[in-house]
Amino acid sequence: MATADASHTMAGSEIMSGTLYGLGVGPGDPELITLKAHRLLTSVPVVAYPAPEHGESLARSIVASHLAGNQTEIAIRMPLDLNRFPVEAVYDRAAVEIAEHLDAGRDVAAICEGDPFFYGSFMYLFGRLTDRHRIEVVPGVSSLVACPAAAGAPLAARDDVLLVCPGILPEEELQVRLATVEAAAVIKVGRHLDKVRRVLEALDLVEHAHYVEHATMADQVVLPFSEIDAAKAPYFSMVLIHRRGEAWR
Amino acid sequence: MATADASHTMAGSEIMSGTLYGLGVGPGDPELITLKAHRLLTSVPVVAYPAPEHGESLARSIVASHLAGNQTEIAIRMPLDLNRFPVEAVYDRAAVEIAEHLDAGRDVAAICEGDPFFYGSFMYLFGRLTDRHRIEVVPGVSSLVACPAAAGAPLAARDDVLLVCPGILPEEELQVRLATVEAAAVIKVGRHLDKVRRVLEALDLVEHAHYVEHATMADQVVLPFSEIDAAKAPYFSMVLIHRRGEAWR
Repeated sequence: MATADASHTMAGSEIMSGTLYGLGVGPGDPELITLKAHRLLTSVPVVAYPAPEHGESLARSIVASHLAGNQTEIAIRMPLDLNRFPVEAVYDRAAVEIAEHLDAGRDVAAICEGDPFFYGSFMYLFGRLTDRHRIEVVPGVSSLVACPAAAGAPLAARDDVLLVCPGILPEEELQVRLATVEAAAVIKVGRHLDKVRRVLEALDLVEHAHYVEHATMADQVVLPFSEIDAAKAPYFSMVLIHRRGEAWR
Repeated sequence: MATADASHTMAGSEIMSGTLYGLGVGPGDPELITLKAHRLLTSVPVVAYPAPEHGESLARSIVASHLAGNQTEIAIRMPLDLNRFPVEAVYDRAAVEIAEHLDAGRDVAAICEGDPFFYGSFMYLFGRLTDRHRIEVVPGVSSLVACPAAAGAPLAARDDVLLVCPGILPEEELQVRLATVEAAAVIKVGRHLDKVRRVLEALDLVEHAHYVEHATMADQVVLPFSEIDAAKAPYFSMVLIHRRGEAWR
């Protein structure tokens, strides 16, 4: 594991420090959290989660029905104006607040949509706290597997090479990378949907692609890519590509 | 979803057919199954799983503590001699047996290590049954996220491109593909460990790689890649590479 000493010695007496759990809570359906995440979530005294500047946290909403109601909650609120108050400063402050609980012997569960180490914001807390605190990451169901399940389309099989690219990549790079793999997922499509469409058209892959947004949530959308005519998608959207099409047949 | 009609009309009367659930049960730790997989596993009348020719099924062992004991079990046994009895014939026969239960209105849970659509053997049942039966895939915690959690090493972050390659790829191809990405996972390393080592050495990535076998199981091994001196690894092993090293700091 990433760490380190479970206890600090202070003025001669040994004080157990708490554990920070990076808790993957899955793609959105509250039933897609693991038994382990459920156990920890309902037993730790402190729960932390990312949240917008105002309003509800998506990560918290996934587990809201499981929370006991008597836990200390730390909302890590992301300001709309990141020039005024950059993300580093937000996580610096959150790490200090979490460290105080850990030093006092209280376990903290930092809940993360999907999986903590798969493009997750847990990275920021991990980087700031791993040297001095005990951290355990509880893996979760990531969108990478939730989207193919929603689409009814296998992601990768046999000896496929699978590529995962963020939609923000420059068009030329996206095209070069997608040209050589059997299976691919373009994640965080959002405002890059038109660019992704041009790349798929250039590579003759439109008929081999599925589009999924908000997988496993109440407002889930699944469509063949060819039926999408919007220019933009939500941030939590994915395009799944399989060069061989229905390769499993 | 992948399917299709929920009911068949037969001799004038409507008979509900059962649903085939492709149930991801995670990487090995029985606590890493989802609440949904647990609910279905404990409520369906029929459970199917891959198994060796003789002895215990790994997939079944992950969920053994959750099984009620009164369910019909279908062990899909893989003969050692696949020349004599190829994998296609094994799954042809299993699909017929499962279809009989579905046609009789009984739901069947086909349990899969990790996630059903991430390099899983569920593919073989899906391909044979998706045209005529209702199938729902319940995504699971895949080894792709369980191994980084075990290693305490983030898999991918920010705008990383992530590549997943099976260890069986030819050495030259593996080297070309790994040369251009920020993050990679070489899966199913097994007897290809020496080849993977040569590629990492050629790309100067040995110090940027972790080795994980049997993630989250009782016999889990996690090591910096540089400390591995064996020539072979078990089938369920993975090498995780991050070009930027501790990029999260």
